Amino acid sequence: MTQYSLVGKDMKRVDAIAKATGQALFTADLALPRMLYGKALRSPYPHARILGIDTSRAVKLPGVKAVVTGHDSSDEKWGVFRYTQDQRFLSIDKVRYIGEEIAAVAAVDEDTASEALGLIKVEYEELPAIFSVDDALKPDAPIIHENYQGNINIHVKIDVGDVEKGFKESYLVREDTFDAPEESYFQAEPYAVVAQFDNAGNLEIWMPNGGPHLKAKPLANVFKMPLNKVRVRKITIGGAFGGRSEISPADVMCALLARKSQRPVKIVYTREENTIATRQAHGMKATIRTGVDREGRVQARDVTCYMDGGAYSSTGPIATSVPFLCMEQAYRMENVRYNGYRVFTNKPIRGMYRCHGRAFACGVDLQIDMLGEELGIDPVTMRLRNARQPGDYTPTKSYVGSCGMTETIVKSAEAARWKERWGKLPPFHGIGIGCNSVQTGFPMGIRGGSEAFIKFNEDGGITVISGVVDNGQGNETMLVQIAAEELGLKPEDVQLISADTEVTPSDPGSYSMVSTFVGGNAVRLAAQDAKQKLFVLAAKALEAKPEDLIAKDRKIMVKGEPERSLSLTRAVRLGLSKGQSISGQGAYWPKVDSRREWVENPVGQLSEAFSFGTTIVEVGVDPETGQVKVLEAWAAQDVGYALNPKIIESQFEGGLAMGGQGGMLTEYHILDRGRVLNPTQLEYKLPLACDMPKINNIIVETFDPNGPYGAKEAGMSIAMSAAQAYSAAICNAIGTYIHEFPITPDKILKAIEEKSKREGK
Amino acid sequence: MTQYSLVGKDMKRVDAIAKATGQALFTADLALPRMLYGKALRSPYPHARILGIDTSRAVKLPGVKAVVTGHDSSDEKWGVFRYTQDQRFLSIDKVRYIGEEIAAVAAVDEDTASEALGLIKVEYEELPAIFSVDDALKPDAPIIHENYQGNINIHVKIDVGDVEKGFKESYLVREDTFDAPEESYFQAEPYAVVAQFDNAGNLEIWMPNGGPHLKAKPLANVFKMPLNKVRVRKITIGGAFGGRSEISPADVMCALLARKSQRPVKIVYTREENTIATRQAHGMKATIRTGVDREGRVQARDVTCYMDGGAYSSTGPIATSVPFLCMEQAYRMENVRYNGYRVFTNKPIRGMYRCHGRAFACGVDLQIDMLGEELGIDPVTMRLRNARQPGDYTPTKSYVGSCGMTETIVKSAEAARWKERWGKLPPFHGIGIGCNSVQTGFPMGIRGGSEAFIKFNEDGGITVISGVVDNGQGNETMLVQIAAEELGLKPEDVQLISADTEVTPSDPGSYSMVSTFVGGNAVRLAAQDAKQKLFVLAAKALEAKPEDLIAKDRKIMVKGEPERSLSLTRAVRLGLSKGQSISGQGAYWPKVDSRREWVENPVGQLSEAFSFGTTIVEVGVDPETGQVKVLEAWAAQDVGYALNPKIIESQFEGGLAMGGQGGMLTEYHILDRGRVLNPTQLEYKLPLACDMPKINNIIVETFDPNGPYGAKEAGMSIAMSAAQAYSAAICNAIGTYIHEFPITPDKILKAIEEKSKREGK
Repeated sequence: MTQYSLVGKDMKRVDAIAKATGQALFTADLALPRMLYGKALRSPYPHARILGIDTSRAVKLPGVKAVVTGHDSSDEKWGVFRYTQDQRFLSIDKVRYIGEEIAAVAAVDEDTASEALGLIKVEYEELPAIFSVDDALKPDAPIIHENYQGNINIHVKIDVGDVEKGFKESYLVREDTFDAPEESYFQAEPYAVVAQFDNAGNLEIWMPNGGPHLKAKPLANVFKMPLNKVRVRKITIGGAFGGRSEISPADVMCALLARKSQRPVKIVYTREENTIATRQAHGMKATIRTGVDREGRVQARDVTCYMDGGAYSSTGPIATSVPFLCMEQAYRMENVRYNGYRVFTNKPIRGMYRCHGRAFACGVDLQIDMLGEELGIDPVTMRLRNARQPGDYTPTKSYVGSCGMTETIVKSAEAARWKERWGKLPPFHGIGIGCNSVQTGFPMGIRGGSEAFIKFNEDGGITVISGVVDNGQGNETMLVQIAAEELGLKPEDVQLISADTEVTPSDPGSYSMVSTFVGGNAVRLAAQDAKQKLFVLAAKALEAKPEDLIAKDRKIMVKGEPERSLSLTRAVRLGLSKGQSISGQGAYWPKVDSRREWVENPVGQLSEAFSFGTTIVEVGVDPETGQVKVLEAWAAQDVGYALNPKIIESQFEGGLAMGGQGGMLTEYHILDRGRVLNPTQLEYKLPLACDMPKINNIIVETFDPNGPYGAKEAGMSIAMSAAQAYSAAICNAIGTYIHEFPITPDKILKAIEEKSKREGK
Repeated sequence: MTQYSLVGKDMKRVDAIAKATGQALFTADLALPRMLYGKALRSPYPHARILGIDTSRAVKLPGVKAVVTGHDSSDEKWGVFRYTQDQRFLSIDKVRYIGEEIAAVAAVDEDTASEALGLIKVEYEELPAIFSVDDALKPDAPIIHENYQGNINIHVKIDVGDVEKGFKESYLVREDTFDAPEESYFQAEPYAVVAQFDNAGNLEIWMPNGGPHLKAKPLANVFKMPLNKVRVRKITIGGAFGGRSEISPADVMCALLARKSQRPVKIVYTREENTIATRQAHGMKATIRTGVDREGRVQARDVTCYMDGGAYSSTGPIATSVPFLCMEQAYRMENVRYNGYRVFTNKPIRGMYRCHGRAFACGVDLQIDMLGEELGIDPVTMRLRNARQPGDYTPTKSYVGSCGMTETIVKSAEAARWKERWGKLPPFHGIGIGCNSVQTGFPMGIRGGSEAFIKFNEDGGITVISGVVDNGQGNETMLVQIAAEELGLKPEDVQLISADTEVTPSDPGSYSMVSTFVGGNAVRLAAQDAKQKLFVLAAKALEAKPEDLIAKDRKIMVKGEPERSLSLTRAVRLGLSKGQSISGQGAYWPKVDSRREWVENPVGQLSEAFSFGTTIVEVGVDPETGQVKVLEAWAAQDVGYALNPKIIESQFEGGLAMGGQGGMLTEYHILDRGRVLNPTQLEYKLPLACDMPKINNIIVETFDPNGPYGAKEAGMSIAMSAAQAYSAAICNAIGTYIHEFPITPDKILKAIEEKSKREGK
């Protein structure tokens, strides 16, 4: 858009140099005077009663400054909703997975802390454990949480229209079951915390977080302190992907140790601990029944999904509904039923993820391909016939304003020359398409809005004060870009103070794709507020009306008459000389339906805007080894407006790597009786840059009426649709469908073999 | 005042526990990872040309990470006004006093840094030096600054009314000359700085300061950086007394070393360095000619004052006019002339001080006593007849609104039973009175105002964001008290974020007695802004009008109907649930006449309000040893409104200790050819708690219409009037007048001896 100076352009990331040169300071890099090092004692049993914890020998070890157990903490438990609060931060009575926290030690160095852990004696009584959803649902299964009979944590139930009638009227109905095990977020930065209490009893804490205010509230609850005594501070963060949104036992352990020792304490998780004791993605089994008419239009759909939640509720209750919500946004359907069950097992805890529900999302898309195949309709046409359209309502009654679903399908198919390739590729080559849609935030009630302050310095520079956190996705750059654009400043004129609960006002946190939409809008409004004050001052000096002024190139000028101008600095000083400081305030609360229990029975406006993405990939499969080579990818997303195309493209590419290349080819947890056998990079295969195909990014703009400059989230509907496209392309290459994900070489070889058998070869 | 819950009460200081337990972190306590230690190389000569600086050997010393000289810096010079900028932060061509900074070293420890200093070779050409005002003013005196011929730095010239006519019409005229050498601020905390540059080139710096924004601006100038790249951060401060308001060469050296080494650097001054190389108080010689009528009313006054400014301008130009301004505020006079000269010498630099002008202020008051003696009028009556009255204009045309000058005289005289004591005390016992008045801030133009933000947390707690700094006087407590009062909160509900140039908005700094008046007003306005938003929300819920509501006890209630109430938390959450965050913004700019050169020729409104103080002391003098024992003191000040009586009393007591006990009895610098011989506590006699007399504090309230709740500054007009009362009491005790201050035993013995001779004993 030519009307803007900075937004819509590839402005360099504000954190580029710090990160590229290694100078950015992460939590593990923090060093405070007199700081101690903390370590956690974890359960070796998947399910056991704790009969006693004896820390007396550990306390006496020279160099040990504090030992804490759950008895040092309040009784507060964690869960994303009041009614799902089931996790004590340090267990005192029972452990429910291998790795659960029981005690923690702070000592003068890590070795001493580790040695002290060995001196803590815990007496256990082992209990029968459950390692699969099937076992958990057996009538005689052991109960993991007394208040969750049948081990069902949550049951999301949606039933819209008349599903049975829809099936009856369908031309073709299919039912398939898809399965996928747990997987990792594998953030580049293992979890770490530094905590200290000051002499006034205020807690200061640093950690990777998906929103500092989101961490502060549960910490305030645990420590029975008001919010203004808990200060979650800004620090560089190495990735979140949904996995840094919750309070962690590490936060509580670290703060408890700091309080007890009256010294700063640092806990840095090992890679193993990051895998087993921070949130990871759910395993899932989805049975999908879909009826279509002759033209492939969905008439009815019924999905039953079982999610393996591990030992505690976490944010899992939200994760149980999200795959459905994404699906209902992406595709039109009038008669739909969903039963989503989150089930407890004695395995590590599962939470929110950037790429929800491989078994669900990929299943839905693969089944569309299967239905199309039976009807003789190609996948692109199937999707165009079912694509969500602007002005629609979703089955759960969200109004969809801006919507580029169709445009992403058309543009990616054109770019990929779909028509020339579909059905015409050489043997063991395949092409596949996936479509998805995600929200820009969920209903967060009183915590759903963002506020920002902007203050002008006397030299015309500004400071933006915003609660938005940057987990690596470029939020800081986005905020600087918006503030500078709005005020006609250069990026270097803007200093950002962010993600500190004391200094920065309310913000929902950087997850659920909400930062640009909500935090970006707040900063834009704050900038406009300050600008308005400057325009009133400048109008007098320029003998013009405030509404005829624009801010550009560090000047305020009369629209169309650039020679009638005043420097911004001059306008600021004009104000100051009259005793008026120039500052701005802005707040944005998305207009959504906030009901307490929207998760289990969602109805109403879920989010103010939705993004829509299509990914197409072409693959080659080696029939001898089952190896997949991804030849090329096309990622098209409706981002509303591309605030920073370069950053958006990097989000597309990251999404494709995570959802497709890793999520559909190599990533999964191998568990043996609740123990994760592949917790580190050695065994858990993350895609590397050299593994990635050529990616063609296609940015579609629909100018959402509520987004800042029209912008919506960027990248997540690529992560989701990439998983779908990868699975579809492989199935297309081998000429048969696979129902278990990720699609590893063994599964490919097995599918080829079975196909050969079926075809009598 | 019973209508308030918190203001007007002895609320405990928010920093009490941290300071009492030693947990408060001062700059010297800071430790940053990889931090280096800096040391300064200082001139051993009072006046010399620098022919060369060779740092090559120092650079090579193992452990040395950076060596800087003035060649590493920009050419920017310091001085409080553009036209008095004469001090380069590291000299490259000339040194003008013993102790001037030439180079600095950063090394892995202090010993290595000290060793490296010894390896720097500086070649000097000594120049003739000047060590007294008299020598500086001689026609053939060497010139210290080329652009200040005659060595006169500044000449303040005031001539109001018809002074000669006034003298002609006077019944009695006296002329006296008074003299006092330089003295120390002697802050409890020696100067210290920690600086670091981040990878984006932003400077972060911690140091004791009298206003972070006041430090940031000159630092930005030196480093040619915009203000938002210089972040002066909050740190506990151990006293300022006017001496921490300016940028210091230490700030620049530390930042230069940090930039060159790319590591954090800490410089901690020794006590000697704090004395010779930070600002201290001027030496002064004042000739005062006063004419009075038969009743003792001043008809004309002519003062000529020479101030020894040392080597550079510093803030001395302001200090040259302040003693006059205080005097003209305290006492009525229509015909007055003032010639104030600040003169350069080759001695350490002098700046602003909490207790301006011993020789001037005490001289004026002593002369009033002398005139009274000749007229047969006692000192209290003399002062009552000349006291400033509300509604007056000062000679330089400041309107005096609230004024309790007379009340402080009457109340302190009553409390001290003046009438029963005056002239009736035993031999070598004396009683004396002093009166003074100070401003609440000076005209600072665009930097004269303060702004504050307040944000509410969802649990009803707040954060106050203000640029006001606390140097120890209790400003933080004052801000918390005001915010809590205004919003009906408890002190513990308020978190204060202050004195950080990035995070907090504009503030003039905590000097010139401005913080309560300007910063306090800004916070009050911000709180009222937030309260108004809450009242609108609560009014609906309570079915009342916003204007009928009050905030009290964490509730919003209908005035007079406390049962119709709503908790503040509920009101905040009402707002949040409607997408409205509760925050407030307030700004206060004092209405003063800001002219660029008000210092040299002040006319117009100098300050928005003035405080007025009277001190009375009773002393006993040992005629054998000359030792003075102060028996009791009465300190009465018009503080407008006593926001926190306990803190105000501690300011009175600190003022009396500094201005009277130290300033008039023991404190002065002994210099030998420009070298300070008594820089440390061993030789420089500060009063101890055990030296102090019983102090009777008398708080007078006049409810200034512009002050927050009517408040004005507290304590400084006690510091000034205490010096006056001490000198008057001693002179009364020995029955003769002393013209040189401080009044040490040797001067007392000499005066007694001379009196005996005169009286022919």
